[in-house]
Amino acid sequence: MKEIQAPVYANIEINISRAKSSAVSAAHGITPAEFAAIEERVLAAHKILQQERKEGKYGFYDLYKDKETLADVKKAAAHFSSFGYENLVVLGIGGSALGITALQTALNPPYFNTLSKKRRKGAPRLFVMDNIDPDTFRAMLRLCPPKKTLFNVISKSGETAETMSQLMIVVALLEKAVGTKAMKDHLVVTTSPTGKGAPKSLLHPVAKNYKLTSFSIPLNVGGRFSVFSPVGMFPAAMMGMDVDAMMAGCAAMDTLCSRASLMENPAYLRAAIQYLMDVNKGKTMSVMMPYADALRDIADWYRQLWAESLGKQKDLDGNDVFTGQTPIKALGATDQHSQVQLYREGPKDKIFNILEVRRFNTSLRIPDTLSSIKELDYLRNKSMNKLMAAELRGTMDALKASHRPVVRIILPRLNAYTVAQVLYLLEVETAMAGRLYHVNTFNQPGVEEGKKIARRLMGGEA
Amino acid sequence: MKEIQAPVYANIEINISRAKSSAVSAAHGITPAEFAAIEERVLAAHKILQQERKEGKYGFYDLYKDKETLADVKKAAAHFSSFGYENLVVLGIGGSALGITALQTALNPPYFNTLSKKRRKGAPRLFVMDNIDPDTFRAMLRLCPPKKTLFNVISKSGETAETMSQLMIVVALLEKAVGTKAMKDHLVVTTSPTGKGAPKSLLHPVAKNYKLTSFSIPLNVGGRFSVFSPVGMFPAAMMGMDVDAMMAGCAAMDTLCSRASLMENPAYLRAAIQYLMDVNKGKTMSVMMPYADALRDIADWYRQLWAESLGKQKDLDGNDVFTGQTPIKALGATDQHSQVQLYREGPKDKIFNILEVRRFNTSLRIPDTLSSIKELDYLRNKSMNKLMAAELRGTMDALKASHRPVVRIILPRLNAYTVAQVLYLLEVETAMAGRLYHVNTFNQPGVEEGKKIARRLMGGEA
Repeated sequence: MKEIQAPVYANIEINISRAKSSAVSAAHGITPAEFAAIEERVLAAHKILQQERKEGKYGFYDLYKDKETLADVKKAAAHFSSFGYENLVVLGIGGSALGITALQTALNPPYFNTLSKKRRKGAPRLFVMDNIDPDTFRAMLRLCPPKKTLFNVISKSGETAETMSQLMIVVALLEKAVGTKAMKDHLVVTTSPTGKGAPKSLLHPVAKNYKLTSFSIPLNVGGRFSVFSPVGMFPAAMMGMDVDAMMAGCAAMDTLCSRASLMENPAYLRAAIQYLMDVNKGKTMSVMMPYADALRDIADWYRQLWAESLGKQKDLDGNDVFTGQTPIKALGATDQHSQVQLYREGPKDKIFNILEVRRFNTSLRIPDTLSSIKELDYLRNKSMNKLMAAELRGTMDALKASHRPVVRIILPRLNAYTVAQVLYLLEVETAMAGRLYHVNTFNQPGVEEGKKIARRLMGGEA
Repeated sequence: MKEIQAPVYANIEINISRAKSSAVSAAHGITPAEFAAIEERVLAAHKILQQERKEGKYGFYDLYKDKETLADVKKAAAHFSSFGYENLVVLGIGGSALGITALQTALNPPYFNTLSKKRRKGAPRLFVMDNIDPDTFRAMLRLCPPKKTLFNVISKSGETAETMSQLMIVVALLEKAVGTKAMKDHLVVTTSPTGKGAPKSLLHPVAKNYKLTSFSIPLNVGGRFSVFSPVGMFPAAMMGMDVDAMMAGCAAMDTLCSRASLMENPAYLRAAIQYLMDVNKGKTMSVMMPYADALRDIADWYRQLWAESLGKQKDLDGNDVFTGQTPIKALGATDQHSQVQLYREGPKDKIFNILEVRRFNTSLRIPDTLSSIKELDYLRNKSMNKLMAAELRGTMDALKASHRPVVRIILPRLNAYTVAQVLYLLEVETAMAGRLYHVNTFNQPGVEEGKKIARRLMGGEA
């Protein structure tokens, strides 16, 4: 499929010129000497990452190659879509929720759940239940009667308290509404694989008892790197997204991001810049600011990826380092009226990542109206698209004038191919950044304590 | 109305015990000596703020006392509600959008725009257009045919490019669909007042030409402090919210926040803690993390308030200070699976503000199901509410164990009275914080440059 579809798509681009010392001064931009000094470390890290990839330590790199799983996902999506359900409800939190949310916002029309089924092209409404707010969960249950709804529960271990409490409520409702036998038509499980050597998941007996369709999350793929596994791809296929184009986007980006090069590998170049900005220039915050509503939840997905991967007390040698850049999500042009005052005039502690779309799907003309108001002449007969581009440029130039560094990620169009490229790029970037920070990118020891306390408060064993 | 409604409501509370040195060490918590040292400055600032309030320099304090405007707002809302429109569309950005968005999420049911009109209690769907994304704006226009829609355009100067471009598109559509004469039934203007000494607004001629209902934003009220003016209150009343209860909440909070005291004034105490955390303890980031979906957009509203008010290059004496704490929005329990790893193990550069709801509107039991799975016993027959409370406690205790300071704001229930109290509290807190940082809290010079460049790129004069 890559062979057929890739040629019609253009790749995303990155532009780092506004993060260089020549643009924003040596105090706030990366100097040629700094690039030269980091190159060797990047190339050494590249060798380790490639070796560990070959050994199968990290599975996220190669998820797009698993055509068998993708075929299963598409087949199951076709099967469940044939029932014509009104709703798809994902029960999942963190990495089980953020990927599909980012894809849905990026690739399906705005206000999706308020559109008619026809305008949704037959796809169900999507509800991603990533919290345990009782008011929200009750409201979802009212909107999604069990008979008209497919639920997809996602948890690698089946031990996630939030997700399992949701599941228990849903199973009881399904038992009552459709009965035990028809449960398999309304509930799909995504969890760790069964079989030799695989760890137990509490979702295994659930899948077995009710004979449910079940997808596996490879053992070497962590939650925040799982979007291209069935965690993201099954709901994506259910929502009518072009999962083949996503795989093609990953493949093209893998080619670029496998280059043994600092300057020619966009993931490594971005990782090096972010790392140097933090460590050498005091940019302890990394702002991700898309200039397109559709990309806003990619900033949220990235926020987990960056924070959980790099926010670590210990380095790989066991030293206390308390490291990690804080990711911040923003949105242009909206946040020009909220955050840009701070971004331009506040402490010089941020690097800005701008996500741009070169061409929106819609072009919207500003008509020749209110013609007596001369002060609006500059808008008249222009387009909203042009205004958005002007605002973006204005903000970037203003940031530059204040010596605030910007790295741009440019999508020629908004589609499954380019959006997948962005996600894949950021995953490889994070893996490289983890090596530069010299931390374990793939664990999250800091969340255990809170879980234990919560469990004890619920009357369970810690 | 205050007299009647206030007694049935309980006030919000703040709890600072986890931000004290006794809880998280002197390196990361405020010591008794620090509280003692800042008290005099707080009391001096209090005098200045009170004096300037009396002189009418800041209008936000007293918006709730303006019964005449509130009566006008309610009357107009009743008038337009009688048309039974399906949609209310707010055209506004920044302070013109964030307040009503926060109120809508906090006070109306989840998934509001997907509910039937009956379930919405007759209120329209709400669309707050706070960006110029052409794909989103086109999608809104498709969902909101002019005949079935009331538009409320909000801009103090009438010069906001984003909002005025939206308005031009809407006016042209209304002209075509309902004609010039009926425009007044579909468009309401909120802008600066007319009359002697008032600055010109480009929305004045629009209101005049079409004989539109028009609300005034007092000249001494800035956008980010305008939620209790008609900017927030007209759409709130249209959406069926209890604006009287909000005014009562403001009044009660004004009493508390007018106290000439550090320890007994919740706004001053919070301001002092946040300031000391930044300046003395290196907490350059202030995380606002509600543990209720309904409060998530209050974190976004606060993000503008804090960033634009305190993010300043110059202090009041004209010195370069490049100051301002970075506000970060988060959400519990969701972000335990995204940000808490960084919050606990990353750099010790954050203070956490937790917004809690003591009692949700709904109680949701976790049923006795999947009974063969013993590992789920601790959830069985408990409630989702209890789990949410346990997760919150678990996270706060884990943060404490890692010496990360937390300030709690506790809402006994989610309602118009308590939500208004939170907003009012944070406004007074910001005014005090601005005095402590010694900056001009009420301007935003840093956004002008980008606007000028954008205007020039559109072919206008800068």
